[in-house]
Formats: sequence, structure tokens, C-alpha cells
Amino acid sequence: MGSGEVTDLGEGSDNTPTLSEIARAAGVSAPTVSKVLNGRTDVAPKTRARVEEQLRELGYQRRRSTAQPSRLLDLVFHELDSAWAVEVIRGVENVARAEDLSIVLSESAGRLTPGQTWVDGVLARRPAGVVLVLSDLDAGQRNQLTSRGIPFVVMDPAGDPADGVPSVGTNNWHGGLAATRHLLELGHRRIAMVGGPSGMMCSRARLDGYRTALETARIPVDPRLVREGDFHHEAGYTAGRELLTLPDRPTAVFAGNDLQALGLYEAARELGLRIPEDLSVVGFDDLPLARWVGPPLTTVRQPLVEMAETAARLAVDLGRGRQPAATRVDIATSLVVRSSTAAPPA
Amino acid sequence: MGSGEVTDLGEGSDNTPTLSEIARAAGVSAPTVSKVLNGRTDVAPKTRARVEEQLRELGYQRRRSTAQPSRLLDLVFHELDSAWAVEVIRGVENVARAEDLSIVLSESAGRLTPGQTWVDGVLARRPAGVVLVLSDLDAGQRNQLTSRGIPFVVMDPAGDPADGVPSVGTNNWHGGLAATRHLLELGHRRIAMVGGPSGMMCSRARLDGYRTALETARIPVDPRLVREGDFHHEAGYTAGRELLTLPDRPTAVFAGNDLQALGLYEAARELGLRIPEDLSVVGFDDLPLARWVGPPLTTVRQPLVEMAETAARLAVDLGRGRQPAATRVDIATSLVVRSSTAAPPA
Repeated sequence: MGSGEVTDLGEGSDNTPTLSEIARAAGVSAPTVSKVLNGRTDVAPKTRARVEEQLRELGYQRRRSTAQPSRLLDLVFHELDSAWAVEVIRGVENVARAEDLSIVLSESAGRLTPGQTWVDGVLARRPAGVVLVLSDLDAGQRNQLTSRGIPFVVMDPAGDPADGVPSVGTNNWHGGLAATRHLLELGHRRIAMVGGPSGMMCSRARLDGYRTALETARIPVDPRLVREGDFHHEAGYTAGRELLTLPDRPTAVFAGNDLQALGLYEAARELGLRIPEDLSVVGFDDLPLARWVGPPLTTVRQPLVEMAETAARLAVDLGRGRQPAATRVDIATSLVVRSSTAAPPA
Repeated sequence: MGSGEVTDLGEGSDNTPTLSEIARAAGVSAPTVSKVLNGRTDVAPKTRARVEEQLRELGYQRRRSTAQPSRLLDLVFHELDSAWAVEVIRGVENVARAEDLSIVLSESAGRLTPGQTWVDGVLARRPAGVVLVLSDLDAGQRNQLTSRGIPFVVMDPAGDPADGVPSVGTNNWHGGLAATRHLLELGHRRIAMVGGPSGMMCSRARLDGYRTALETARIPVDPRLVREGDFHHEAGYTAGRELLTLPDRPTAVFAGNDLQALGLYEAARELGLRIPEDLSVVGFDDLPLARWVGPPLTTVRQPLVEMAETAARLAVDLGRGRQPAATRVDIATSLVVRSSTAAPPA
């Protein structure tokens, strides 16, 4: 592999050390430094670590002109088995098509950072940019990409970007507030929430929006009405079975996301509760299926396609040396009212 | 680009011509032939065409040992905006992960063959294999990939593979038969069908299965009950509005696929018809959402993940020089009975 490797042995005219200088400092040959720079795997791990250390110490920065990026754009998912992955892919694909790039798709298989194999692949294929979805790089990985001049952007609906890492997100807190206010305005007072995993900042932000909506309406938050899910259908179903069999069951549920809302639909169906007559449900995301379910789901629209487009565009621009106006872009949510919400039963 | 280009100027020991011989025949230099082989775009189109012609005429075949494929696997979709794209990606990703490959994702943007830009990219990045979904290569593109030793497989739920092209499909005819027989066994006699585009062989196969089921039950096919859709939600809705307002409306509909079934759900809801009490609906695909809609959808399961796994595995194996037992693999469908089908109203 090692597409169009540069050996880059000339003068370090712009303050970045030459490969020879790094080689001397690390006690290896210049071709070995070149191999490490290009993500070749035929270098002993210890040697590699020593070279990486010197690259970092000496502040090596690949000069733009010496290495043309490939016509690839890397896209890394935390996990692929979510209905919204397609929305994100579509957004990135829109930019890739316009820029004549192909997308390299990876899944970090549930880990929050991709593995070393992925990093090696990226260094070797030298993409025009990297977009990470709900996934992040550790400090060492960031350093590896930065020193090779490979820009990366986190598309981060979770809302928890590392310092200084360019990221695109959405205002989850405001979405939670809007969803809950909508239910309050319809007259609901017993409003439950099924959140996402408490380890994700987006879950916490939506929950905080829900709490603030209740508190500003002077309704105390009943902890029995707040459940933690994992954003999958089954979690909504399980929480729904529990909530809807409470003696004083809620008349409305903010389901945290659309898939959990569908789980609530199923629980309500099984218990003979009609939506929206007996129970109002609000989702979050506005996946295409939100329009198709029965009744069509009232939900908070998270503009996933636009977010992904913005993240991909940002990565491509960074690769061309353009500095973005802001390293954090939040795209606004909006409430989409359909037929799953109504006034509470009299 | 041009990852690890080989110039391959040695003897043509295994009957394949050398680059020099091709260069002579095409009246160009050997480096120009090398550029064309490696998908470089800095060659005039006319020159390129001349070289491609000689590669074909002289039967050039890249020797396996001379060019290591990259750690990439190309995946091309006809269009990405379908809920089942994620299922396919997951299947390919399962194989990619096991083989330590990354997926390069492309969309042929509704065209049935990918464009020249894509072909150039593939020749340059030299993937371990190519999987095409509902998309095919034209004869020239096939020749270009074959001469460079890049294997390709069509994942072809449409059921219309080109001669000799390795492909993985499913038995659409049998699925259509099973869906319709299920409705007949419940006692339905007025059974409508909303098919897919008539240009796709999978649509025709499902429709033929439907017809055969009716004919073997000695029920004449009523052409007013057969509609053509495009496999999207809206088509199911439109056909549903028409079918369900007929004076002698059907008591059951085989919807062609799951998304069209959801369109039928919506039409039925609007017209105040209950599923399954007033109307039975059967889908095709068994997307995750089929379980989540209300009522959960009876559908024909098309094992998309397994099909994609099989296609990706086949491409990887071909790249290693293993010849498959069969160039066409069909994976069986199965009927999944849920709650959207019941006996017709008395």
C-alpha cells in the first residue's frame, strides 16, 4: 500500500523537521520514518512508538504540497445498526459527490475510539478528511492524524466534543425543552420521559430540557416517571410497559428518540391504550419512519443530513487549509407536530 | 494517488502481454500504459481508449503477484435512500471486519452503472473486491476491472444478473407465491398487488408468484387489482387510496415491499379501515421497522444481511483466486406472519 509515498528528505524550510532529523532523534533510518508516516505496518511496534514520539516532540507537520490526499473521505460510525446511519451517510455522500470523493466507511464496533488498524489504514490511504460520528479519537490518534495533515471533524449529536476538535452537533437541550413544552401546552401534567444512556451528553441535555420545561411550568419532576433507555426500540417497549402499568400512569411520554417512541407504541398497543386519545408520545430525530408509523409521530427534528453535510464540508475545507469560522457548529432542532399528541383524556 | 503502482515491464511469462507490447500496439509509451492500468486521470481520453482497446485485444491480465490489493472493499449502491441500505452495509461490514478491510461506499446516483469517475477511482485504489448492489457494470467496465484482476460480485435482489457475472440474489418468485398463498389460506379472494417497477426483474418475479398463487387456486387475476409502484412509501399510499376506494375493494393487499406496505397502512388509516380486521396487508423484505409498526407487519423475509455477507465473501474469495462453486447464489425467502393479516371480514 502506501499510496504515492513521499519520502520528503529535503530541507525543513517551514520549521517542520526533516525526516532525517527525526530519524536521527529516534535512532532509526529515514526510510523507517517514512514508513511510519505512511502507516506501513512492517515496522516493529517499539520502533514505531519511538518514531511517533519524535514526530510529536519535534512537532513534525507534513507540508501540504508534498503529499496529495487521495480522493477518499473517511467516515467512522460508533455503530451502524441504527436507522439514522443512512441519513448521515446520505449527508456525507452529498458532499463526497460534489467533491468527487468516495467514502470509506468504518465502524468502531461500539468502541468510542476506532482501533489501531483503522488509524494505520487512514495513514496509508491518506483521505482528504475524516468524519467521526458519535465516535472520537484519543490524543495519540489525533496527533498521528494532525502530523500527517489529515483533517478530522466529529459529528457529534452526543454533544460532548473534545477541546478544540472541530465538531458539528445539534441543540439537544432545546429539543427536549420544546418536546415537553408542546405536551404541557396540550394540557398534560403527568409527563414521563424515557432518556438515552446517561453516559451520553445528548441524553443528559434532552433530560435537562425536559426538567426545565416542567420546572418552569411549576410541575415537580416525579423520578418514577423518568427512565433510562439505550435509544433502541426494545428499551422504549420495556420502559413503556413499566410506565403504562403504574397506578397513576402518565398521560404523555417524551420518548428520547424515535425508535424508543416506537417501542412505546408497541407497549401501548399491547395494553389497549390508544395513541393519542389515551397517551401522547413525542420522539426525537425525525427519521423517515416517523412519518410512516401509525399514528404519524410528533417528534423533534434533528437535521441529520444537514449535520452530516456540514461536518463533511468542514473536513474538506480544513484539508484545503481553510480555517473554519467556529470549531463548533450547532444546527437547530425543530418540533414537528403530527398525530401522536393530543390533549390528555378528560 | 496510484497506490503502490506497478510498472510491470518484465517478461510476459504467463501469456499475458507485457506493458511494452501493449504500448507498441497502442502506439504510446510504456509509462502511459502503466498510467491507464492504474486509473490515473492524466491521460488524454483518446489515448486512454486506445490503450484500453489493446489491453482487451491482447488479453492483458495483471498477474496476481505483481500488485497487492489495498485493504479496501468497494460497495456500490444504486441509491442510498432506502431503509434497507443499512442492512446491506451491515452484512458487508461483517465480512470487512473479519478480513480487516475498510468499505469504500459509492452511490451510482440512480444510474444502473456507476460512472467513469468511480471506475478511475477503483483502478487507482485497487480494492480487494467490489460488491455492486442493484447496480451493474457495463461490458467495458467489466473488462477494465477484469484486466486489472479486481473481482466483482453483484448483490442482486433484482434477479437479473448479466451472464457469467457472479451474483447473489433471493427467490423473489417464491416469496410472491408464499405471500399470496398465505392470504388465500386465510380465506381472501379479492387480493390486490402493488408491485415494484416493471423494469426490475424482482418486481416481475414477485408479480408472477402472485399470479401463479391465484391461478393455482382457480381465481382469475383482476387487472384492476394490480398496480405498479416504485418500492417507496408514497407509491403504496397512492395505490392504496385507489384500491381501497374501488366499489368492490380488495380485502387483502400484497404490497410488494415493506415501505409500500406502510403506504397502504396510511391509506387505510385515512379511510377508516382497520388492519387486519378490514384489510390484510403483506410486505416483502422484513426490514427492522416491520416489527415496529402497528400492527406489526406480516412480510416475506429477504435475508439482506446474509445476502450481503455472501456477496462480500464471494468477492474476497475471488480476489484470492478461489473459484466459487456457483456464480449465482440464491438465498431463500421465508414468510414471517405477524399481526397485519387475518381472515377477511365476514
